Amino acid sequence: MVEQFETAEGASQGATRLAALRDAMQSEGLDGFMVPRADAHQGEYVADADARLRWLTGFSGSAGQAVVTADHAAVFADGRYRVQVREEVDLNHFTPVDFPATRPEGWLRDALTEGGRVGFDPWLHTHREISDLRDALEDANISFLPVNNLVDRIWDDRPSPPVGQVRLHDEAIAGASAAEKRDRIAAQLRAEGQAAAVITLADSLSWLLNIRGTDLPHNPVVLGFAIIAADGSVQLFSDPAKFSDEIRSALGKAIAIHHPESFAAALANLEGPVRVDPGSAPEAVFDILDEQGTAVIEARDPAIMPKARKNEAEIAGMRDAHLTDGAVMARFLAWLDARAPGGLTEIDIVQKLAELRRAAGALDSSFDTISAVGGHAALPHYRVSADSNAELQAGRVLLVDSGGQYDNGTTDITRTMAVGDVGHAAREAFTLVLKGMIAVSRLRFPKGVAGRDIDPVARAPLWTAGLDFDHGTGHGVGAALCVHEGPMRISRISEIPLEPGMILSNEPGYYREGAFGIRIENLLLVTEADSPDGREMLGFETLNFTPIDRRMILREMLSEAEREWLDSYHAQVLEKIGPRVDEQTRIWLEGATAPL
Amino acid sequence: MVEQFETAEGASQGATRLAALRDAMQSEGLDGFMVPRADAHQGEYVADADARLRWLTGFSGSAGQAVVTADHAAVFADGRYRVQVREEVDLNHFTPVDFPATRPEGWLRDALTEGGRVGFDPWLHTHREISDLRDALEDANISFLPVNNLVDRIWDDRPSPPVGQVRLHDEAIAGASAAEKRDRIAAQLRAEGQAAAVITLADSLSWLLNIRGTDLPHNPVVLGFAIIAADGSVQLFSDPAKFSDEIRSALGKAIAIHHPESFAAALANLEGPVRVDPGSAPEAVFDILDEQGTAVIEARDPAIMPKARKNEAEIAGMRDAHLTDGAVMARFLAWLDARAPGGLTEIDIVQKLAELRRAAGALDSSFDTISAVGGHAALPHYRVSADSNAELQAGRVLLVDSGGQYDNGTTDITRTMAVGDVGHAAREAFTLVLKGMIAVSRLRFPKGVAGRDIDPVARAPLWTAGLDFDHGTGHGVGAALCVHEGPMRISRISEIPLEPGMILSNEPGYYREGAFGIRIENLLLVTEADSPDGREMLGFETLNFTPIDRRMILREMLSEAEREWLDSYHAQVLEKIGPRVDEQTRIWLEGATAPL
Repeated sequence: MVEQFETAEGASQGATRLAALRDAMQSEGLDGFMVPRADAHQGEYVADADARLRWLTGFSGSAGQAVVTADHAAVFADGRYRVQVREEVDLNHFTPVDFPATRPEGWLRDALTEGGRVGFDPWLHTHREISDLRDALEDANISFLPVNNLVDRIWDDRPSPPVGQVRLHDEAIAGASAAEKRDRIAAQLRAEGQAAAVITLADSLSWLLNIRGTDLPHNPVVLGFAIIAADGSVQLFSDPAKFSDEIRSALGKAIAIHHPESFAAALANLEGPVRVDPGSAPEAVFDILDEQGTAVIEARDPAIMPKARKNEAEIAGMRDAHLTDGAVMARFLAWLDARAPGGLTEIDIVQKLAELRRAAGALDSSFDTISAVGGHAALPHYRVSADSNAELQAGRVLLVDSGGQYDNGTTDITRTMAVGDVGHAAREAFTLVLKGMIAVSRLRFPKGVAGRDIDPVARAPLWTAGLDFDHGTGHGVGAALCVHEGPMRISRISEIPLEPGMILSNEPGYYREGAFGIRIENLLLVTEADSPDGREMLGFETLNFTPIDRRMILREMLSEAEREWLDSYHAQVLEKIGPRVDEQTRIWLEGATAPL
Repeated sequence: MVEQFETAEGASQGATRLAALRDAMQSEGLDGFMVPRADAHQGEYVADADARLRWLTGFSGSAGQAVVTADHAAVFADGRYRVQVREEVDLNHFTPVDFPATRPEGWLRDALTEGGRVGFDPWLHTHREISDLRDALEDANISFLPVNNLVDRIWDDRPSPPVGQVRLHDEAIAGASAAEKRDRIAAQLRAEGQAAAVITLADSLSWLLNIRGTDLPHNPVVLGFAIIAADGSVQLFSDPAKFSDEIRSALGKAIAIHHPESFAAALANLEGPVRVDPGSAPEAVFDILDEQGTAVIEARDPAIMPKARKNEAEIAGMRDAHLTDGAVMARFLAWLDARAPGGLTEIDIVQKLAELRRAAGALDSSFDTISAVGGHAALPHYRVSADSNAELQAGRVLLVDSGGQYDNGTTDITRTMAVGDVGHAAREAFTLVLKGMIAVSRLRFPKGVAGRDIDPVARAPLWTAGLDFDHGTGHGVGAALCVHEGPMRISRISEIPLEPGMILSNEPGYYREGAFGIRIENLLLVTEADSPDGREMLGFETLNFTPIDRRMILREMLSEAEREWLDSYHAQVLEKIGPRVDEQTRIWLEGATAPL
């Protein structure tokens, strides 16, 4: 459970490294070079060996890209990182650019003259990304050329890739053996006339083979590539040093483990048609197959949908992990109430939670804990550092967004607590957010409805007050896997219909700059639901059981039905979590879950 | 104000007419022929001269199409007309087909062999429709051939097209002179490099020239075509007999009136590029321009968006028309309460409303009044006939959906009333529908939000109870024009962002087959709205002022905010409508608008 509080590495080396990169570009005859934050697996976290963007620029955000020309070095960052990128890069040498208001294609159009040549590492960009760039700049005669990574060439002390041991993910928790999963996907490939499928997403690969690893913080995936053939056999490309004999024997003969360095050669030897996902697979995969004249079928990674629709065992694991985590949260909140403000800092909160989760058996936190006091809470993605670390203070809210990685499930929860009297404005905002959060929790909806159809239900109470929040209402969640998992979301842009077994967060918020931030989050499981009219409907089952701070609620703003939901939810919290905590915590829990 | 109650003409002639059509098809060497309900203007109503589908098949619905081959005659009808089409056509000769589950292209693929030739009248199908058909059946080698209408050839006593007099639409109500409107559109054409635009929608044409007519029931449009040149001059193709000297002189020299028969020749003489709307303009327009090699720019009819965004004068007219209509509705509801059930029938209701609206100055009803008792109300588009006419009865709801065409505005309103004690189930459903209707009425929302983002807000209370309704939440409404006006809607399929000045209906419902139906409808004007955070937001202003039946409401199901909205709405009803009605009605109104 690694939680770090250093401020970012800083940009003291930026000028030197940038100069070296420009030398390398010149020797390759390139006018531009792209340094994305992503690795070949397009996940949310990257290993230190892949942290090229941070090494070059100092920028440590979870998404972004540098684009370097002879005269300019742009660092693209989205709304979450507007402030952070300006603090982390050397502004004498790097220019932060607001993405997506400005996109690399638009920036390159201005930065380069006709005939410009832009280099990129074809393993770090998806096929779709490169196709879109080429389409956008074809008329300007700007070309994109795959090259060996120029950053790697100049990065002398580049760390080695991670070689942490792989463990098996228990079949009883996975709900299906790796063989069954492989068989099902192989049958699909045969039905669709595909000889093989290429898998480059680490969570797809880890789900498919029922393995977990320690290659990355927070996401228990094994980094690697896989090729699954239509007979169900798999070539796995991941450092063999990570696989003990025991693991190898458990994986069985149908799974051949090779070093990632041999992935390209294996692709070149494939018989087509080969299924590849243009939205996630590296451009290099397409280049290699094209070069061999191998037929490519562009289609979604075949593991994505079965992974998104959790089976009964995965659901049982997720339920149980949330009960374990509910006990952690109850202990934490009881401790907080007894101590706060008491000189506690945001970092103290993070450490206390980490300690409690570790004691409860968590392997890691499921993402960097957000612990934010007052105005910090108004930054939806605030991450405390030693520099920013604020003390709790009476009259300020405390927002804590955290989760654990347990053997049997991944948890995620946000609560916003009153420390002392936080005033009417914060309580009013909290109650509006809560109304939206309850509306989604209680919702039934017809089959076919997508996340974007549900998103307005969470916002309506805020909207009606002239307020809003600038993030989605919810993200998909993996089962003992990544806490951010697609393709389902509750968001204005998500057209994916929700299906039974999907798990999503429900986390509306409200942020008043410099003053306070509110977010209330539970995870929801999509379930079949009854309809008096026999309509085909779905609903949600709440997975988290943690009190919602009653001191933050303006009771009269809730309807009878909303109060009933809250009281019934709190009664369940007490019933399910009460027996799992110590006496002192249970006494606190009784108070915190009393009817409104 | 024509309200008719005869059952449809029937299908006694169907067999003879079908045989004659097949003879005509054979003499043209056609294997199929399409007979749509639409005329060349693609409106909701057609003149008797254009009622080809009804003449051939007996089917009188407002949308549909017959497709005839040597052996089969399909009549496509959507969900609204499943029952009606089966009652109206001769089932020995015509086969009702459920649209859109089955579409003409799918049906033709099965009905015809490769090389099949399907004839169609290119004036009655849009360019998009024919392009889509051709694309869909290219692989089956089925071709679509424009021909002179075969129905017209065999229709001996076909009525003449309407020649009712055109009147001017007062500039004070229109808010802009026809010259100003023409100038604005001409400037747009010049800016976009277009020499002219073709207008084939009757409401666009009537809006553009500030004219109104009596060519159709309920929609006060003038049927015709127009070509507006980039200098703002207009060639209008509409029977000159409809235009008095006074109208001609008011229209001025920039508008040349020609007979519709010369429209084709004028198109053939046009200099390009010509703007034409592929979604509404007849295929024939494209064929003629293509034949001449004239450049065509496919773009939306340029009148559609300015017509949809009402100006201050149009808004003032719509507000006033709704106050006039509110007085009508108050008189009607007071009369109903004093008399019901009293042997009153659904037709009595329609006639009473027509009489009251006529007395209040209405020129017409804005659509066929829906007056539905009990189980009839469960059919969202029920239209009473002499055969179906039911009596009001204690314990049954009465649903009335109606509107008027006034000089200064078009109204639309639905109320569902209790006659006697209608029982808990109907009141519960009413209250759920009301909650959704109030949620939309009170809503603010960020700019950029489309109808589909608002639709779930209307449904959430029903969805949460496992219920739903199978129509959109609302349609756009014209200003002293068509009661159904695009492109804005509140519907799962509407991506058009709402803009200030648009007027839409808000009419969620609930229908329990054989038992009751609920619908509550007000019209809403989209307005700029405040945001405490300075966000760019929009909101709604309610236009209708008519009591919502308090006897139908289960008070405890409403939140404090919902009760406040209702009480405040009712207070406004009394304040605005009270002074406009007789003493007896005002006394009734005081009771009907008392706080809940």
